[in-house]
Amino acid sequence: MPTSLETMISAIQPINLDAVQAASDHLDQLTKPPGSLGKLEEIAKQLAGITGITVPKIGKKAVIVMAADHGVCEEGISAFPSEVTQQMVLNFCSGGAAVNVLARHANADVVCVDIGVNAPLEHPLLYSRKVRFGTANMAKGPAMTEQEAHQAIQVGIQLVEELAAQGYTLFATGEMGIGNTTASSAILAVLTEEEIKHTVGRGTGIDDERLQHKQAVIARAIELNQPDKDNALDVLAKLGGLEIAGLTGVILGAALHRCPIVIDGFISSAAALVASRIAPLSVSYMIASHQSQEKGHERLLKAIGLSPMLHMDMRLGEGTGAVLAFPIIEAALKIMMEMATFASAGVSQTDNQTDS
Amino acid sequence: MPTSLETMISAIQPINLDAVQAASDHLDQLTKPPGSLGKLEEIAKQLAGITGITVPKIGKKAVIVMAADHGVCEEGISAFPSEVTQQMVLNFCSGGAAVNVLARHANADVVCVDIGVNAPLEHPLLYSRKVRFGTANMAKGPAMTEQEAHQAIQVGIQLVEELAAQGYTLFATGEMGIGNTTASSAILAVLTEEEIKHTVGRGTGIDDERLQHKQAVIARAIELNQPDKDNALDVLAKLGGLEIAGLTGVILGAALHRCPIVIDGFISSAAALVASRIAPLSVSYMIASHQSQEKGHERLLKAIGLSPMLHMDMRLGEGTGAVLAFPIIEAALKIMMEMATFASAGVSQTDNQTDS
Repeated sequence: MPTSLETMISAIQPINLDAVQAASDHLDQLTKPPGSLGKLEEIAKQLAGITGITVPKIGKKAVIVMAADHGVCEEGISAFPSEVTQQMVLNFCSGGAAVNVLARHANADVVCVDIGVNAPLEHPLLYSRKVRFGTANMAKGPAMTEQEAHQAIQVGIQLVEELAAQGYTLFATGEMGIGNTTASSAILAVLTEEEIKHTVGRGTGIDDERLQHKQAVIARAIELNQPDKDNALDVLAKLGGLEIAGLTGVILGAALHRCPIVIDGFISSAAALVASRIAPLSVSYMIASHQSQEKGHERLLKAIGLSPMLHMDMRLGEGTGAVLAFPIIEAALKIMMEMATFASAGVSQTDNQTDS
Repeated sequence: MPTSLETMISAIQPINLDAVQAASDHLDQLTKPPGSLGKLEEIAKQLAGITGITVPKIGKKAVIVMAADHGVCEEGISAFPSEVTQQMVLNFCSGGAAVNVLARHANADVVCVDIGVNAPLEHPLLYSRKVRFGTANMAKGPAMTEQEAHQAIQVGIQLVEELAAQGYTLFATGEMGIGNTTASSAILAVLTEEEIKHTVGRGTGIDDERLQHKQAVIARAIELNQPDKDNALDVLAKLGGLEIAGLTGVILGAALHRCPIVIDGFISSAAALVASRIAPLSVSYMIASHQSQEKGHERLLKAIGLSPMLHMDMRLGEGTGAVLAFPIIEAALKIMMEMATFASAGVSQTDNQTDS
């Protein structure tokens, strides 16, 4: 691993357990059976641990949408042509995509990043951080060099640093890249030593025949590139993609800056899996948003140790599931701030302690 | 079944399938793979069908919290004393309970109804619609008469009528009643012919010993009262409770007034099951919010044919899970209103049609 990345990772701190305990003590005084608000209580405690403040405030919110192209598309593994990546980037910049609508609904900003789209792209709202014009075809060789993967990770880390300096305190991951369920399925298969048939799904919507082809392409790419399962950076570089590497950086950057990072669907979770292998402490900063309909997602979240809140049968990516979880995270904090205590409301407590 | 109830039920209309189709056609023009927003798209179509308008507007939102006491509490089946019901009603009226916090977060109103609390209660914000002072102990006889169950249902129907006249168009169910998981488990067991051990859970938090006792009490109540599984009103009357009957009315009232009704957790779902048996068309008006941690809830939702969006491990009731789903429902409508189409954004469509 490059020294600069190692230095950064060693600066990630564990969450503050005293703050978690203080939040937990407060929750148990509120007018409800202990623990009965489930994940809302878990989130409230996690936010306390992340920030070191019992009841933190949320500042500005951003979903960081990393876009890149995939050389493996020339193998015909997607239902959509590659050009859709760049078309959708402009759609994000114009505010017309699903993630824009859902981000506005959650009062959050969309930060769209060209980290590796295979075309020159310009827009006043676009963050141009292109590492290269799309990855190479992993079925014919490594998707990118380890140096490029590292550079893409640094893009993510630096972006969070910039945004944190602007007052953003809650982040979500999002992505766009035709072909990126193929890269994510390959990463999942290698890092968890799982059979390919369990990690590969239909992406944006392919039929049975193309699904089998997609599985064969992934098998060939793994066989050809021989990624080292114990070296997540090697796996990431050989199987791609640039947006996945960028999101790995976003997650590491959020952990470094003690900000919660909401993980979207399958591709975002592949980035989270890589981050968890590079820097295990980063997992405490992650909040899983939704269970995607994409086949390997449940496995992927379990491999990281995350449990999703939303089961919406969504399979769009972009960060759509993650921003849908923003209001739930804010609800957890409002519970901490606004609920009455047993004492203040004159409500009797449980007559046993089995559940506390 | 009383004639007035039969007349009301026969007035419930199926949802408008033309409007569903129009919504579906619009969704397929938006810049995303067809169906990729999963339940958000299903909700958008359902709202169109319910209102008869392709993209309806949501007016005022209310969570109707029905409160009542349960005679069966004298058997010692709950972790909390009965007095908590009335204490929590005042907490709802003062705005300090979890449902108040989450309703404010969702910009919704809490409508708290005393439909059968076992104490005289007064508060300027309380809807006093008491049918009787708590149910009788179902382990010793019927919880209430069929006439009282019918009266409680009418309270719910009339309340929705009043609120709809005031501009409310989106409703959620909520409840408070120490002992009401016992009543709900009994109803579930009878209406679905399920073994009691699969329908009875820990409620607000009882230990193993009390759980076994709770199961025995329910078995005794069913044995003693011999409710007719093919007559949901008989089951409701014999096993209680008044808040469950009231919520059955709320659900029927929403269907009658063509308003979506968001179903909360275990107790609310027991009311929804009763409603679905009394008036099968009412199911098209229901939106399941969350999967509660209470043991029988998954079975209960499946018996109605509903699939929950949120998996929060919550087990509080009050309508807390239902109001947490309000922003998701509004998000579905914003997708319909604000997303760009393939044509307007210049985005290429899928190169196959396997998924459309």
